[in-house]
Amino acid sequence: MAASGEQDMKIAFGDELTRRVERRASQLVLGLDPDPEHLWSSLPEPADALREHCERVIAAAGPACVAVKPQLARFELFGAAGRLALGEAVDAAHAAGLLVIADGKRGDIDVTARAYGQSLFGGAGPALAGLGADLATVNPLMGPDAVEPFVSEARAAGAGVLVLVRTSNPGAALIQDAQLADGGTVWEALAGLVDELGRGSAGECGLDDVGAVVGATVPAHLERARALMPRAAFLLPGIGVQGGRIEDLAPAFRPGRAGGLVSASRSIVNAHRDGGGAPEQAARAAAETLRESAWELSSAVLGAS
Amino acid sequence: MAASGEQDMKIAFGDELTRRVERRASQLVLGLDPDPEHLWSSLPEPADALREHCERVIAAAGPACVAVKPQLARFELFGAAGRLALGEAVDAAHAAGLLVIADGKRGDIDVTARAYGQSLFGGAGPALAGLGADLATVNPLMGPDAVEPFVSEARAAGAGVLVLVRTSNPGAALIQDAQLADGGTVWEALAGLVDELGRGSAGECGLDDVGAVVGATVPAHLERARALMPRAAFLLPGIGVQGGRIEDLAPAFRPGRAGGLVSASRSIVNAHRDGGGAPEQAARAAAETLRESAWELSSAVLGAS
Repeated sequence: MAASGEQDMKIAFGDELTRRVERRASQLVLGLDPDPEHLWSSLPEPADALREHCERVIAAAGPACVAVKPQLARFELFGAAGRLALGEAVDAAHAAGLLVIADGKRGDIDVTARAYGQSLFGGAGPALAGLGADLATVNPLMGPDAVEPFVSEARAAGAGVLVLVRTSNPGAALIQDAQLADGGTVWEALAGLVDELGRGSAGECGLDDVGAVVGATVPAHLERARALMPRAAFLLPGIGVQGGRIEDLAPAFRPGRAGGLVSASRSIVNAHRDGGGAPEQAARAAAETLRESAWELSSAVLGAS
Repeated sequence: MAASGEQDMKIAFGDELTRRVERRASQLVLGLDPDPEHLWSSLPEPADALREHCERVIAAAGPACVAVKPQLARFELFGAAGRLALGEAVDAAHAAGLLVIADGKRGDIDVTARAYGQSLFGGAGPALAGLGADLATVNPLMGPDAVEPFVSEARAAGAGVLVLVRTSNPGAALIQDAQLADGGTVWEALAGLVDELGRGSAGECGLDDVGAVVGATVPAHLERARALMPRAAFLLPGIGVQGGRIEDLAPAFRPGRAGGLVSASRSIVNAHRDGGGAPEQAARAAAETLRESAWELSSAVLGAS
């Protein structure tokens, strides 16, 4: 994990994640999905506007969050300048004490997966610096050999991986919910893979360095996902615009505060478009409301105050 | 398709693809997976070496090929400079009369998938130019709503999409070969999705603009894949280093010459490391051998001379 530096001994990723969540009293992940049509910047050069937008959004909503989650697609649309802006957003997030979840949903095999892993995490030698992400989303359709190299590269960099298990979109049902002849569904098989790949990586706090993306839109799945992946941190997209509700997330927090990372993007960044006011104040208020709901829920689940 | 310009009327993607294959008498796809440790360039600056490597590889092996397939991971490892080098490789390939298959295996929903599609194909308005790829690989784990936006963006740009159906790696079996309770396997369900999304897009030559990635390493799958996707162009990775053999590819060519696009990377670019000689000559000879084998096989399948 990039910005720890608290001790020289390597601490388990899950322990560091837990510490970050505790310190910020937040499980909220600020989605950075910059829409070229609705940036918080009117600078004429698109990449400059992108950069200013990210800075302003991080400054406004970041204090209520534990992490930012840049959506790589949106940066790639800006070409090479977008990659530079992405690097700057990562630096700004780290400087603000936030973790960075690179949301690119990559997935490929052997040397290719290793190259993705290196480019997202710690790089490949001094001349090829990686992005320095603390977590990255990974697509497991191609199987274990398409996920393992990401896990290795993440471990080498003190980072973690979040494997797509059950996504929050309507179309997810077609493949992920398909019933298997041997019992269970495709997403449950993916959950088994997550559990296996993470095994043995947990530290004192009990969380592995291989987590899962589990949509917040189908609460029934969460209970089952937690049973299948007792030590995985869950990234929970789908709150807000997609219809998911914080109060349905209880199973995520069972292994601890950091067991559920609640991701929201449009409902924070576009809060002023619904509720009025300056973008900064509206975003901060929306983020603070989400942070508080998630924190209170995790307190209730854990029986803490 | 970027560089056609032969007539003003929009021609079907599959017809243009067929025309290109016929004109070059080649179904060979040159994989560009530049390995920082083994570039055909000793320029000191990594991104310069990357750029020179791609230029030299395209110049050497391109004449035997119909397309190049840059592996986006390898370029991303070079950061913003890698994105510039990728753009230059695309331009060099187009200038050499080659199609470009952007191999990034992206997959995500709605606005995110649209952003990926725009960044790979035609861009989003004058200020945000896309890469200008003619085809891109897409990961369908998230379902139809994660593939459709790629298809729309490809269509708007006169390009096509190649959906992962059955990949060539050993681990592919875990999820893709899983038997479904309703019959068939996961990959067969994905094949159904490809067939459905492509429907209605074929022109005179009978090929849709939604194709499939079907590994050449399991020949038994190819026959079945062709039955399930009669109008899809197949991208066939796994020839050479991964153990696939050209002579097993017959079913791919049943709908026509362009029904099978045979992808090879390391067996061309690293040919000199096994067989000696200058990289250029070795690569050109290796590519020419593969081109000829595939062309002859397709001739035999189609009963042409």
